[in-house]
Amino acid sequence: MPPYDPDNIFGKILRGEIPCHKVYEDEHSLAFMDVMPQGEGHTLVIPKAPSRGLLDAEPRTLAALIGTVQQVGRAVKAAFRADGLTLFQYNEPAGGQTVFHLHFHLVPRFDGVPLKRHEGGMADNAVLAEHAARIRAALADAA
Amino acid sequence: MPPYDPDNIFGKILRGEIPCHKVYEDEHSLAFMDVMPQGEGHTLVIPKAPSRGLLDAEPRTLAALIGTVQQVGRAVKAAFRADGLTLFQYNEPAGGQTVFHLHFHLVPRFDGVPLKRHEGGMADNAVLAEHAARIRAALADAA
Repeated sequence: MPPYDPDNIFGKILRGEIPCHKVYEDEHSLAFMDVMPQGEGHTLVIPKAPSRGLLDAEPRTLAALIGTVQQVGRAVKAAFRADGLTLFQYNEPAGGQTVFHLHFHLVPRFDGVPLKRHEGGMADNAVLAEHAARIRAALADAA
Repeated sequence: MPPYDPDNIFGKILRGEIPCHKVYEDEHSLAFMDVMPQGEGHTLVIPKAPSRGLLDAEPRTLAALIGTVQQVGRAVKAAFRADGLTLFQYNEPAGGQTVFHLHFHLVPRFDGVPLKRHEGGMADNAVLAEHAARIRAALADAA
């Protein structure tokens, strides 16, 4: 497995070099909207600590991250009044990974609605901004 | 979300009422082969503590569980000399869940090999036993 390369798109987001539609941030993690959503409300949760994927992460990084995944997952499901929630986490190109900074995909799911392809196109910025606001409001309600 | 029902198939496995092809066990988690694999080496990791899914789990349960997911994930990837690893975690029927005890799917992935459908049929018991042994050996190598 190649080493972590900080010049990946999520590394740039963490450094503020490119923008994101942020839904949550704490000392160890960041959550923001996926710009190529597989469904309405598709959100990503990443650690601030550098790791390429699940297998090279520090155990303490993972332990903190999964707490954020749960909190944001609850808010995503509530914000979209979803019937379910699907998590994906991809490692290496064969495993579906395209950005080489550890991330969990959180996709709200609705009865009878299949997932879209991840490469299905960029979402509208205004729509993503509204979705991020809706999830932030659900997080605030839960706090 | 309905409450946890202990009469689910993973609850029965945890109580020893039905068998599994075990690859790992500690005080808080259990890992075993999926009997309807989406690919060779498809392994499940579950907590011993009862929770229906990700969203109702105790934070300390999740923090311990993700450590097991990482350890077993490394062993699964090594045992099958896989190119990658894909994690799935499904919540509620709309989210793809069919057994209502929290579980992570770990699927070794190979360049150019698509996932099979989860309902693609039961795997051969002898094959699953051999795969479980291979993953246990990889865990022992890593220890």
